[in-house]
Amino acid sequence: MSDIYPSSADDPDGSRLAWVEESSKTSGGFRVFSVRESVCRSPEGILKTFSVIDTRDWAMVVPVIETKRGKAFVMVRQWRHGARELSVEFPGGVLESGEQNVEGAARELREETGFVAGSVTKLGEMSPNPAIMSNRIHFYLAENLTQTGKRELDEDEFVEALTVPAAEVLQNMGRPPYIHALTAAALLFYLKHCP
Amino acid sequence: MSDIYPSSADDPDGSRLAWVEESSKTSGGFRVFSVRESVCRSPEGILKTFSVIDTRDWAMVVPVIETKRGKAFVMVRQWRHGARELSVEFPGGVLESGEQNVEGAARELREETGFVAGSVTKLGEMSPNPAIMSNRIHFYLAENLTQTGKRELDEDEFVEALTVPAAEVLQNMGRPPYIHALTAAALLFYLKHCP
Repeated sequence: MSDIYPSSADDPDGSRLAWVEESSKTSGGFRVFSVRESVCRSPEGILKTFSVIDTRDWAMVVPVIETKRGKAFVMVRQWRHGARELSVEFPGGVLESGEQNVEGAARELREETGFVAGSVTKLGEMSPNPAIMSNRIHFYLAENLTQTGKRELDEDEFVEALTVPAAEVLQNMGRPPYIHALTAAALLFYLKHCP
Repeated sequence: MSDIYPSSADDPDGSRLAWVEESSKTSGGFRVFSVRESVCRSPEGILKTFSVIDTRDWAMVVPVIETKRGKAFVMVRQWRHGARELSVEFPGGVLESGEQNVEGAARELREETGFVAGSVTKLGEMSPNPAIMSNRIHFYLAENLTQTGKRELDEDEFVEALTVPAAEVLQNMGRPPYIHALTAAALLFYLKHCP
């Protein structure tokens, strides 16, 4: 890693770029998130207010099965109200209070697809959007899957489960219905783990 | 692609999952986004309200240079107020009104890093979060870069530009400061384009 601007031999990690939060208050509460106004002081002493979206952490699971034609993913298809279109994506959702992240990942997989995982491995975690969101997304690999045939969907969840060859998902990422950027991030972690 | 639930031989694309928006109104305006309450009717006729974050489309650029040790990316390091930590990520930002997406991508690259691109190629586009956001993110590859040495940052932008070997970025994705999930998605598109 080499810096272009500015020369920073005495601060290679950029810690001088850090802002300090001076105060913070919630300014809007919505269905699955709230918005907070965060007043921060810049490295040069300027005070500025930023809007931050607070919500629970999320889990996203890459469930892999072996088929006669190679590896395939178990995915879900649903209508997404932000994008106003159908999305085919990895199973996942909001982690619940008091639940371990890995348990939440296995729960979301089971509820949305009916698959129970014999092994769940952490692939990594990131900020879904570090500029405006405070939460994290945790990516997991689910293997040794058993199909129970039983799902648990909320009454307003219309979710289909399907299997798609892994190569087809990679090939079509970015074309509808593979529109979900966090599914693309999860796929990168999967490819790093299982090249 | 093969369905698990339900059997859907007569609707292979899942169009029966589509909701219809009945009405919609803005319920909160913030610094760089607003929140809209969207009242939608489910495939089974249930009315339900969803909160959607509206904001302008974004561009993210993967700028590649050749070095003696192989390919490297031009990246930016900055404090991110959502995650409250430093993030090293691909240059990018909010597309401006009246500007072509490709122009906006080149502009963000120039403003944040001082590099002018001889060629800018679309890598793909996605929804940053189709569940709760209505905007799109457009990914571009920037090549044949010329360093002008001149950047244009806002007074509250403290952004460093740096070059990082491509292999190092892939290796460290998910470890601080490589925390940005949309940068991981952009990297997947880059790897698909330049395997």
